[in-house]
This record gives sequence, C-alpha cells and structure tokens, in this order.
Amino acid sequence: MAPSPVQQVLAALAPMLGERISRNDSIRTQHSHGEGWMRASLPEAVLFAHTTQEVSAILARCHAHRVPVVPFGAGTSLEGHVTPPPGAVSINLSHMTRILQVNPDDLDCRVEAGVTRQALNAQLRDMGLFFPVDPGGEATIGGMCATRASGTAAVRYGTMRENVMGLRAVMADGRIVDTGGRVRKSATGYDLTGLLVGSEGTLGIITEIQLRLHGIPETMAAAVCQFPTLGDAVRTAVAIMQMGIPIGRLELMDDVQMDACIQYSRLEGYRKLTTLFFEFQGSPASVREQVQIVEELAGDNGGLGFAWSESQEERTRLWKARHAAYWAGLAYRPGCQPLATDAIVPISALTELMIGVKEDIRRSGLCAPIVGHVGDGNFHTLILVPPEDGAYARALDLDRRIVRRALALGGSCSGEHGIGSGKMEFMQAEHGAPALDVMRAIRHALDPRNILNPGKLLPPVLD
Amino acid sequence: MAPSPVQQVLAALAPMLGERISRNDSIRTQHSHGEGWMRASLPEAVLFAHTTQEVSAILARCHAHRVPVVPFGAGTSLEGHVTPPPGAVSINLSHMTRILQVNPDDLDCRVEAGVTRQALNAQLRDMGLFFPVDPGGEATIGGMCATRASGTAAVRYGTMRENVMGLRAVMADGRIVDTGGRVRKSATGYDLTGLLVGSEGTLGIITEIQLRLHGIPETMAAAVCQFPTLGDAVRTAVAIMQMGIPIGRLELMDDVQMDACIQYSRLEGYRKLTTLFFEFQGSPASVREQVQIVEELAGDNGGLGFAWSESQEERTRLWKARHAAYWAGLAYRPGCQPLATDAIVPISALTELMIGVKEDIRRSGLCAPIVGHVGDGNFHTLILVPPEDGAYARALDLDRRIVRRALALGGSCSGEHGIGSGKMEFMQAEHGAPALDVMRAIRHALDPRNILNPGKLLPPVLD
Repeated sequence: MAPSPVQQVLAALAPMLGERISRNDSIRTQHSHGEGWMRASLPEAVLFAHTTQEVSAILARCHAHRVPVVPFGAGTSLEGHVTPPPGAVSINLSHMTRILQVNPDDLDCRVEAGVTRQALNAQLRDMGLFFPVDPGGEATIGGMCATRASGTAAVRYGTMRENVMGLRAVMADGRIVDTGGRVRKSATGYDLTGLLVGSEGTLGIITEIQLRLHGIPETMAAAVCQFPTLGDAVRTAVAIMQMGIPIGRLELMDDVQMDACIQYSRLEGYRKLTTLFFEFQGSPASVREQVQIVEELAGDNGGLGFAWSESQEERTRLWKARHAAYWAGLAYRPGCQPLATDAIVPISALTELMIGVKEDIRRSGLCAPIVGHVGDGNFHTLILVPPEDGAYARALDLDRRIVRRALALGGSCSGEHGIGSGKMEFMQAEHGAPALDVMRAIRHALDPRNILNPGKLLPPVLD
Repeated sequence: MAPSPVQQVLAALAPMLGERISRNDSIRTQHSHGEGWMRASLPEAVLFAHTTQEVSAILARCHAHRVPVVPFGAGTSLEGHVTPPPGAVSINLSHMTRILQVNPDDLDCRVEAGVTRQALNAQLRDMGLFFPVDPGGEATIGGMCATRASGTAAVRYGTMRENVMGLRAVMADGRIVDTGGRVRKSATGYDLTGLLVGSEGTLGIITEIQLRLHGIPETMAAAVCQFPTLGDAVRTAVAIMQMGIPIGRLELMDDVQMDACIQYSRLEGYRKLTTLFFEFQGSPASVREQVQIVEELAGDNGGLGFAWSESQEERTRLWKARHAAYWAGLAYRPGCQPLATDAIVPISALTELMIGVKEDIRRSGLCAPIVGHVGDGNFHTLILVPPEDGAYARALDLDRRIVRRALALGGSCSGEHGIGSGKMEFMQAEHGAPALDVMRAIRHALDPRNILNPGKLLPPVLD
C-alpha cells in the first residue's frame, strides 16, 4: 500500500527532527484539545520545532502533500483553536523559548513564539520593564498573538494588537516573512503584523515577535469597593472610563462570584455583593489623584467601604479574591465543568447587557458567576455545567443568548478568547457576509491548499 | 468607432451622477496631483460621489470595464497617491461631509470620508471631546485613513492605526464591506480595519469611518527650550520618552528652521539654535509634575531658558514658530520648491541619524530645515529645491541618503506620509521580497483586475 500523505511528510522530516516527531499516544492526547469544551481529536503526529527554519521545512512538506497543520503553544485556548482536524499534524512551538533581544532604551524586545509572558516578565523585571498583556493563564507569546489576547491590563495598555510591533511568520508554503519593525509608527504598506495578530494560525505560523514594553510604574495602588447592586458597580466603572482616568486595572465580580470567592479563599470583611477591584499606576501624585476621584465616583454610585493601599502586601490581600476567581468558581459547584462566555459591548451598553445577562442566567437555572474586564466593556460568565443530561445544551443556549444580546447592542461575541471552532456560528451575524467574503479571499490567497488550521475562524459558505 | 471603456462607464453613470461627472479641464487639473512633487497626470473624468451606494455603483462599472480609479479627498498627499494612472477616473469624496453619529459616553463617532479633522473637531468641542490625529494640513478623515496619517499628537494618542475602530469600504467590484465596530477590543477574525488603514486606495475605497475620541484635557501647558547643539536637544527628547512621560506633543526644529522662523514670524527672544517645543496635558497636578521633570531633563542636557505656561495666549505665543514652520521654510529661500522627507527610527538611534543627516545636508549644498516629531523618532527635512538644472536630482539623492541611513538603523522610509509612487523604490529594502509578495497576493485577491489606484504602494515585481 502506498504511504499516506502524513507518512510521506514524516519520512521526509525524520532526518531533521528525529525524536522530535512523536506519535506517542499521551503526547498526541495532550495536543488533541485546549482548555475549552470542544470535542478532542488526535493529531496524526506532534512535531516539536526548535527554529523558524524547521517550521519552514515542515510547512513546505505539508504544503506539498496537502497535510493540514495546527500550531500549538501552551494549549490554553478556550475555543478549540488547537484541536486538529482529521489527518493533521500538530506543530509544537513551546520549545522556542529564547528571548532574542531586549532594547531598554526603545522599550521593545524580540522573543521566540514559545516564550511565556511570565518567563518574559521575570527576565525584564530587573531592567524596570514589563510586558503588560495578561490573559491570566500561562500562555505563550505566540499563542497570545494568534488569538489577539488581552486580559486585565488591556484597559490601560491595550491588547496584543497594540503591543505587537512586528513578527516573523512562516507562510503555508514554507516561505518566511518578516513584518513590521521596531519603529513607533510607519506608513509603508499593508499592516501585515495586524493581519496576522488574531489570525489563529490560519494565515501563517508565528515564530518570532517584536513586542512593545513599558516601564514599571513608579507607584501602584490597589482598591476594592462593594456595591448594593450590579447596576451600581457597572455605572461606577462606566463613569471612570468616561472621565478618561488612566486606570491600570478595573475588574468586576458579581455577587455569585463573590460568594464563591468568600468560601474558597475564606475572605473576611467581604459581603456577597457585586465588587469592583481597582489598580492605579503612575507617579505618587497622579496615583493619589486617581484614587481620590474613583473613591468619589464609587461613593456617588452607592459604593460601600472603599478600601485602598499602596503597600505590596495589602494590595495582594485586596486583590486576593480576584486572583482566585476561576478556581473559586470551579469549587463552587463540585463536579461541574466550566464554560466561559466572552461578550463585549461599547461601555455605554454594559449596564443594560449585564442586567439582561443576570436575568438570562436566572432563567437558565444554571449557576454562572460573572467576572468582568468592565473597563473594556468585556466580561465572562463562567457557566458551571452539571454532569446531567441536557445541561451542556442549556449552557450553550445561555451562551448564545448572551452573544445575541451583545450583538444587538453593537458588541462582539469575543473580547479576547477568539473564534476557533467555538464561536464560528456567530461570525456572520457579527461581521456580515461581505466582510467574511473578504476574509475568505485573503485566506485563500495566502493558503490556497487550505492546510493552515482548516475548519477554524471562518464558517463554511452557506449555499 | 466603438466607445472607450471610460466612455462606457461615464454613459452608464450619467443618469445617476448627472453634473457630478466632470470632464472640465480645471477640475481635472485639480485632481491631477497632490501636494508632492510627482509628475501630474489628468484623470479622464472626475466623479463626485455623495453616498457609499454611488461609490459602489461607480466601482461596479469601472470593474466591469476595467477602468482604473483613484480616490480623492482634499488632495494633501505628499507622495503622489492621488495622481491618476493613464485612462483612470478620479472619485472625489470631499462632498461626503456628514458626521453620522457622536457617542460621547463611549468616546467614539462615525463620519463620512470627506469630513475634515478641523470640521470634526469644531463639532466636538462643545461636548468636551476631540479627535487627536493631527497631520497638519486640512486633510479629510478618509484620506488620513488611507495613508495611516499621524502628526504632532501621535506621540501621545497614536496614529490612525490606533484611532480607527471600524470602516465602511467599497471593494473593487462594488461590494460594500463593514469592518470593525464600536467595541474597545475584539478577537473575532482578521483585522480588516487595520488592513485598510494605510492601504492608500489599493484595496478598497473608504467611505465611512468609526473613530475613537478623547476628552479634552483638564489642563494644558506649553513649553519651549533651546539647546546648544542638535545632539543635546535630541538626547533630551529621547530621555523624556524613555522615562515614559505621557507628553502631549514633543517637536523639534533645528537651527536652520529656527532661523527661518525667526525671520518669518519676527520672533523675539529666540536664538538660531535647535529648539524643542513641548505640550503637556492632564490634571493640574500631573501637568506640573511633567513640566518639572522635563525642565530638569532639559537642564541636564544643556537646555537654555526653559519657558512654560498654562495660559492659552502664552501657549500660542510659545508655539508660534512651530505652527508657521512650513511657511517659514518656504519663505526662507524664495523661488525654491519644497521636497519633504519622512524618515523614522527607533528612538535610541535618533541622535545618530539626525547628526548624520545634518552632515548629508551640508554635503548636498542644499538648504533643508528640519522639523521633527522627535517623540516618535520621526522627522522631516524640508529640502528647498532651487529652480536650477540638477537641483531636483540632488534633492532626491539627499532623500535617498536619509532613507538609507534610517533603514540601516532599523527604521522606516515613511513615518506618516505614506508610499504612493514617491517611496515605492524603498519598499523592497524595508520589507524584503517575501513580505511584498504577501502584500501583492492580498492585493490581487481583493482587486484581481488591478483597478484600485494601480501603480501605487507596491513596486512592480523585478524579473
């Protein structure tokens, strides 16, 4: 029998990769899924690449034999991005962990795709610098680029869109492309960097990234305030943003999430009420000015017991509940599986959306704590799905209701988790058929054989 | 004789556009060039569009008959973007001047492409809001999108890349596409907005724009400081940026430009020395803090007589020389024509670049004052080209030397003026052949008949 396309690819790559080609079941299983709830599917093999040249050689072979490829970093995807389609190989980039350069004078650096944000920040700390995009998990910078990640610090520093200056990427046929550069702005041609950021492995495989860095602020302060109602808390957050206060972080936890956290972290001094968590950054004078304005705004909206501190220890204590939110949510309903939603709206619509979502949750009968990056208009409901028939369908139904509410209010179905396979059904409603056609034309132009993470991001054309 | 393709297009569009199709010579001449030095070329006709639907109908016809089109706003391009290729029609969008919505609570607005930034800001002022991108001239927002414009406020607020949230654009075949939206961030598909911003009319014609707005700062202050040498001034600017001071504007004029301004504006109290102009924005406390730090940094670098003020009148007086810089430059050598360069480098390389460029200017024998958006690492030399044989060639040679220096230091050939036809020769050196191939593939996918501003942005493939 003739060797299959995958067998031909692996045979051709064996001299280069040797034992870094794995067909081991447990390795394949690790690469069969991210952290989301999508059906897992094994890759035919996992290839551990150590250099851009190796990724190029792998793609050239896969292109020649029409073998689909899925890039894999830390596997923290929530929307099925890394689940292989049938007959695919997974390319693991997590060994590409070199920090290639740090330019403190220009506030930028260059890293390989497998560097995690934690590893990068550990290296930068002594230089007084940091990379601000913080999606929570121990993600790789390459994966964060591919999904256009953001997180709790985006309210001040922006997302990967604003913090990636340039990329090296391998195209479908193996060509290596450098995009962008090291300047703060440029008006020279199409923004290929911006096109690849958020492309979820469908236009090219990102292997190196030039990142914008920031100086560690001179002063930081944290604050917490509880509110009688969800609406009071959201209105406070909206007022802060509308006043243009350069707040460092602005997070919300609803009453259910607070209940979970009080139990999980044995918090004292907190009530089961919607709570805002603040971080302030800047010079000592500007931090105090910000704290004072925010305290007044919170008071105007019914805030109860605004507490703040500049000391590191006290800041950690104040934010303790927020840091443990995910685990507290899981422990709140033992045996349940989490399904995270990711809606975002213009900030003026946030109060209406969140009040509506609370009602949707109540009607669903499911337990679903809310954690919000409310400064961005973005929040997650962590739907806790019980192990019973029909519960997953009810959770998906709740997710769809939330997305429909967000879209009706001029919002988006994903602030930061991306599309993968999990959110494809909403793409047409959010962007319209003409924009999807343009996206498809670009994808087809850059990957005519449809080998780059096929079946993700763009829904099939409906006849 | 059979009607030409253009005649067929115009005949088909006559019922819709009527007198808004012009073949008048003076109108065609107005649309034959921007403000740069490229050879002018008349369009076959100028079509004044009033709606997106009209632009769509025009493009559908032009696509059918393979007639090239060039979008035209205010005609302020410096790099030949709006000069029509042979057989083309020019589509004038300057009558599309509606401000479609302003959302003060969300700090965004939606405008038609022909709205100028001055007209928009006049409308926003009473709401306490402004749109920050300020390229100097009376440009349209559509044109600013197409060239990825920036200007003096980009150091704080970013360029069009950071301030455009979404677009409506008409594709080559007349399809209308909406991109982006109104949320602060989104992770749902390719960033088509970012792809169109800076595409110079080659991927689609932008007809509506969703813009990010900002609150007018509570306090503003201006300051001026002169320096013994160019290097002292640039080092001061670099130190300000490296300290992360959120400065509002940070402009440099070299000794030659200052000499021109002193003569033109009859300035008193200034010497013919390199000068930095500062604008500070924020709360009263933060403005004073910034002023104090910058005054110290200027002093550390030899700054002479740092003068600052919060009063509107005094701010205007301090910045008077900077505002008149372009006209002062022209008046400095009567009878000369200006050629503006636009190099940008990472800020750590700015001192080396500017000192090298001063030497290049000296060797060229040409008069070329320098004005710099130095906070971004970007500056313009206004080469004043005398009306004598060979002078233009010498000016182009000087421009090329400046670009080569910038590229060798990790920079870009254009911080903000764009490519058009004027900078195409540098595209391959800056981006490399693989990135240009990717850009060409995208362009071909979206405009397979090559009717959208052909001959611009991307150089022809070399055999």
